[in-house]
Amino acid sequence: MRFYSDNTATVCSEILAALAAVNHGLERAYGDDPWSGRLDECLSGFFDAPVRAFAVATGTAANSLALATLVPPYGAVFAHHEAHIVRDECGAPEFFSGGARLVLCPGEHGKLEPASLEQMIEDNPPSVHTVQPAAVSITQCTELGSVYRPEEIARLATLAHGRGLRLHMDGARFANALAFLDCHPRELTARAGVDVLCFGATKNGALGAEAVVFFDATLVRDFELRRKRAGHLLSKSRYISAQLLAYIETGVWQRNATRANALARRIGASCGARLTHPVEANEVFARLGVDARAGLRAQGFEFYDWGPTAAGEARFVASWDQTEESVAALCAALSKL
Amino acid sequence: MRFYSDNTATVCSEILAALAAVNHGLERAYGDDPWSGRLDECLSGFFDAPVRAFAVATGTAANSLALATLVPPYGAVFAHHEAHIVRDECGAPEFFSGGARLVLCPGEHGKLEPASLEQMIEDNPPSVHTVQPAAVSITQCTELGSVYRPEEIARLATLAHGRGLRLHMDGARFANALAFLDCHPRELTARAGVDVLCFGATKNGALGAEAVVFFDATLVRDFELRRKRAGHLLSKSRYISAQLLAYIETGVWQRNATRANALARRIGASCGARLTHPVEANEVFARLGVDARAGLRAQGFEFYDWGPTAAGEARFVASWDQTEESVAALCAALSKL
Amino acid sequence: MRFYSDNTATVCSEILAALAAVNHGLERAYGDDPWSGRLDECLSGFFDAPVRAFAVATGTAANSLALATLVPPYGAVFAHHEAHIVRDECGAPEFFSGGARLVLCPGEHGKLEPASLEQMIEDNPPSVHTVQPAAVSITQCTELGSVYRPEEIARLATLAHGRGLRLHMDGARFANALAFLDCHPRELTARAGVDVLCFGATKNGALGAEAVVFFDATLVRDFELRRKRAGHLLSKSRYISAQLLAYIETGVWQRNATRANALARRIGASCGARLTHPVEANEVFARLGVDARAGLRAQGFEFYDWGPTAAGEARFVASWDQTEESVAALCAALSKL
Amino acid sequence: MRFYSDNTATVCSEILAALAAVNHGLERAYGDDPWSGRLDECLSGFFDAPVRAFAVATGTAANSLALATLVPPYGAVFAHHEAHIVRDECGAPEFFSGGARLVLCPGEHGKLEPASLEQMIEDNPPSVHTVQPAAVSITQCTELGSVYRPEEIARLATLAHGRGLRLHMDGARFANALAFLDCHPRELTARAGVDVLCFGATKNGALGAEAVVFFDATLVRDFELRRKRAGHLLSKSRYISAQLLAYIETGVWQRNATRANALARRIGASCGARLTHPVEANEVFARLGVDARAGLRAQGFEFYDWGPTAAGEARFVASWDQTEESVAALCAALSKL
Repeated sequence: MRFYSDNTATVCSEILAALAAVNHGLERAYGDDPWSGRLDECLSGFFDAPVRAFAVATGTAANSLALATLVPPYGAVFAHHEAHIVRDECGAPEFFSGGARLVLCPGEHGKLEPASLEQMIEDNPPSVHTVQPAAVSITQCTELGSVYRPEEIARLATLAHGRGLRLHMDGARFANALAFLDCHPRELTARAGVDVLCFGATKNGALGAEAVVFFDATLVRDFELRRKRAGHLLSKSRYISAQLLAYIETGVWQRNATRANALARRIGASCGARLTHPVEANEVFARLGVDARAGLRAQGFEFYDWGPTAAGEARFVASWDQTEESVAALCAALSKL
Repeated sequence: MRFYSDNTATVCSEILAALAAVNHGLERAYGDDPWSGRLDECLSGFFDAPVRAFAVATGTAANSLALATLVPPYGAVFAHHEAHIVRDECGAPEFFSGGARLVLCPGEHGKLEPASLEQMIEDNPPSVHTVQPAAVSITQCTELGSVYRPEEIARLATLAHGRGLRLHMDGARFANALAFLDCHPRELTARAGVDVLCFGATKNGALGAEAVVFFDATLVRDFELRRKRAGHLLSKSRYISAQLLAYIETGVWQRNATRANALARRIGASCGARLTHPVEANEVFARLGVDARAGLRAQGFEFYDWGPTAAGEARFVASWDQTEESVAALCAALSKL
Repeated sequence: MRFYSDNTATVCSEILAALAAVNHGLERAYGDDPWSGRLDECLSGFFDAPVRAFAVATGTAANSLALATLVPPYGAVFAHHEAHIVRDECGAPEFFSGGARLVLCPGEHGKLEPASLEQMIEDNPPSVHTVQPAAVSITQCTELGSVYRPEEIARLATLAHGRGLRLHMDGARFANALAFLDCHPRELTARAGVDVLCFGATKNGALGAEAVVFFDATLVRDFELRRKRAGHLLSKSRYISAQLLAYIETGVWQRNATRANALARRIGASCGARLTHPVEANEVFARLGVDARAGLRAQGFEFYDWGPTAAGEARFVASWDQTEESVAALCAALSKL
Repeated sequence: MRFYSDNTATVCSEILAALAAVNHGLERAYGDDPWSGRLDECLSGFFDAPVRAFAVATGTAANSLALATLVPPYGAVFAHHEAHIVRDECGAPEFFSGGARLVLCPGEHGKLEPASLEQMIEDNPPSVHTVQPAAVSITQCTELGSVYRPEEIARLATLAHGRGLRLHMDGARFANALAFLDCHPRELTARAGVDVLCFGATKNGALGAEAVVFFDATLVRDFELRRKRAGHLLSKSRYISAQLLAYIETGVWQRNATRANALARRIGASCGARLTHPVEANEVFARLGVDARAGLRAQGFEFYDWGPTAAGEARFVASWDQTEESVAALCAALSKL
């Protein structure tokens, strides 16, 4: 019974059906098909704001390409030290940007905080000898399963923009945040001041599709060239655009995220005081102890250790298609600890 | 009626079925699924040689990642001036390699020729002031629809290896070359001296899948890290590996390529003396004249101009799923010119 | 007797004296000293135009840093196939720009020609699949010893600017061009439409000093950061700025270049019909034949072969401090051929 | 009276004389002159170990080129968070390496400590998702004026080598460390396990000259190409090599460093309990308070604030040519606080 990550999940039937539905006739390649042509309109509707949207197949590509459009090679990106772009992308932001630097910031439950971010920026006054502050990157939901509220995002955006920095949001689990907050997508993005959102679908039911959504259209041409140059402009683009359209238009983004969140809440409830972070989306972090972890594994549960081994912390991720039985079994096992 | 390119094609039913067939259960991500685990064995069997194989979603990624493992940032890659890596990838080889240089070589029908390649290398003796010759890249089939014979590849490989250069093959249409030559895949690769092959499936019936096939395993670890860092390690990797397995194991690579080649031969036959290159695979190049081209378009045929506008040359590509009617109509129209 | 290159020369006494003259007292580093502070004014006066000027120690650094401010990583720089940035800088333009491409152009005597340049640009219409035309780079004097006239530069600038491209001039031997044409420096730069000039002093009597001169100040901040990041902002900057000030203010740029040009003219005159390029500056190219070359070497003359060995071409460069005797001896030896 | 940094200093007479001494005759360029040809021998003698040594004009170039030869683009370099390569080089290590990452480590008085370094490495186990630990970089003397003892370096080297990492030493003030410890240069380098040392001369009396010293010769060819490609191979190389030869052979490295260290000791003694770091070389750090700092400036002393403004810390650097009067005046003023 696997709780490794939501990228172990299958593709939901609506999205598989969308692939079949576009599978007829010869279509122009490289984004000139009708489905790709509808992305801007579809996502502008979703966000209730005029956006330009582009499809790529992975979250790493989405984040790194977006950041590379925001920062020069000598730029600095302020990010939480637990962020995916910091820990899990093999230096992709550095590669795509031509060597920009990630400046690591602290923050409870994986969130950047305006006060400490401001301090970090103040402590590193730019000169010709230093990297130049250029962007702030936040993750929604964070790597620790917490969710930024609209006003938290707005405060970070105000801080960033006031100093000439751009705000990037890694939204690999953006749908889970939306489902948790039950607010309009614009509240977490356009209205809050996000410049570019990487809106993930892969973890939440797609095969491999992420939308890079620009709320500032001036950045777009540079992005398009960087995407091609990085091998991320898919030739048979209808098949990736169709995933994104189905993700939005059928509402599976919401159905899948809502289910995953609910399953995680149940798992979290079974952890009681062992939780190390509030369960707001579909991830659960709990300090179980080294023995209890081994015990769970002996019962057939698969999940990742988190942090230093000796701390005995575990991460459980509920996928959109996690079986009811596996969750019930995990909850029962956790309750017995 | 579209003859733009074989990337306008649909996904063949065997490959779509393979996606559905793996769509059950939670599977480890990032290449640790059973289907990805079978790639090496499947492709070692196909090539009758021990290979390491990796899946990526685009040909640009495949070529550029492969080249980046072969050459240092100050390296030079010798390639035909019409090669896809030169003309159609927005500088991707330079990006992935950290700024290596493509040295452009002449050659009839898109093929590199040993004599002129040797001359190019001789004319640029390396010193600390120059980029360092590091690889030769050839395209099979070439961008002009011709096909290298095994002995032609072997001669280039011998020349390259004799000077310490590696041999890379861009095989976006490798299946079409195999179908044309009707030889064993090893004859065009392992036995001929290819170090890395980018073996395309996308154009010939897949959704988005290319195998980077290493005949020299020492290069592999560097490749894996570069792939991740470039955002080309897919999280739900089972869906790309399943495409490649189906491509090989069901034999669609051969069926689809054979049909596309046959259609192109018919189109070529209708061009008569207007052909500018021999029709060996699924591409047809013909000098029709500016007026004739316009006339064909007025009849509803869609295709690309080739070369300078005034030359009146056209390119027709037969896709694996091109309709019989569209080909018959095109042949009829061409015959009337 | 060495005629390899003008970078074999010594430092002229005026410039060595300038080093000694600034060698007192503790001065702010990294360009904040008074001598560096005078560069803009000194060079604005020289060019009779408001410029921003920056010192770097090598021509490769000057050219590559300048180009990197002009072109994006996916940009294309059109340059003559014999240009120093193409043949002799180990891929530096690619490195500094993050992988931009040099597009090689033909041209008599090392000069770009508007018609063929225009054709090159036309033949490569930009799309998202291609590198993006971004700059034209010319060399004054060219690598083959010829000198662009003001109107030739202006035509290239008009062509470039009309298509949104910038014009870069590699002026490693700019003083020799000025001395040959006997015109005001503004005629070859500001008035002709040059955006950035790399104005060399090293070959013509300095120790190691090149001025990167911006006629468009908007590019400057990016340049300053790239210069630092590339390790080309010298800490004890007074010693490089003092070289440039002395080069301009004492008039040695003119005295040295005039002498070198005159020596080359004498050498050229001794070559007669063997000359392969007109002798306009301080370089002489002559087809002597393989045996004659060997004969000269046996007499103690040192120089480079040029082009394919079998062609028997030689290059002689007259340095500013070439001895009278060595030139007389070379002329005598050449006359006997 | 300036105490900003030792890069405000002049060039010592022995080194200026060396420039004049080599200023005769036409010499081969780009490192093929006799003085450059003696660098290996001279520095092998100095270190009592077979080394390959290369001259560059700046410390940033030396460090970044050295690191780029040690680490792949996806590599991680462990360094103290106060290191010059981290704080003062505008991202140069990232630029030269193609985007490697600096992992910031803590440590008292600017020194890396084996235990915390080991913990950092342990906490970041490499996988295909992470940057790959590749090198450790230490600074001798550190940015906070402290000096690593031979056994401290050896412990770090053992730790690094045991995990397949290389050890780089930024020795911008290496002579000051040697003068303080009064030990043989080999004790701090070859015998301790340093792979590459950037041995600075600029701050200690040269015009602009740093030696990159390789104790492992296999890295050298890559370095040479990277140096050229980065514009750091000087054409008139005799003038930089002559500086390094004079620096070693006349013993000015020792005389200058010894004097600067002694002056700093006197300044440090005047700071009493206000010192924040032990004064081991030529830098003094003291917490004076905001008002006292302003008072010193009002008396004509020039120096840098260190750390957050409110902390009231100051840095004084004694240059090799600092006047006796300025030091006496500073000591008197500090004593009155």
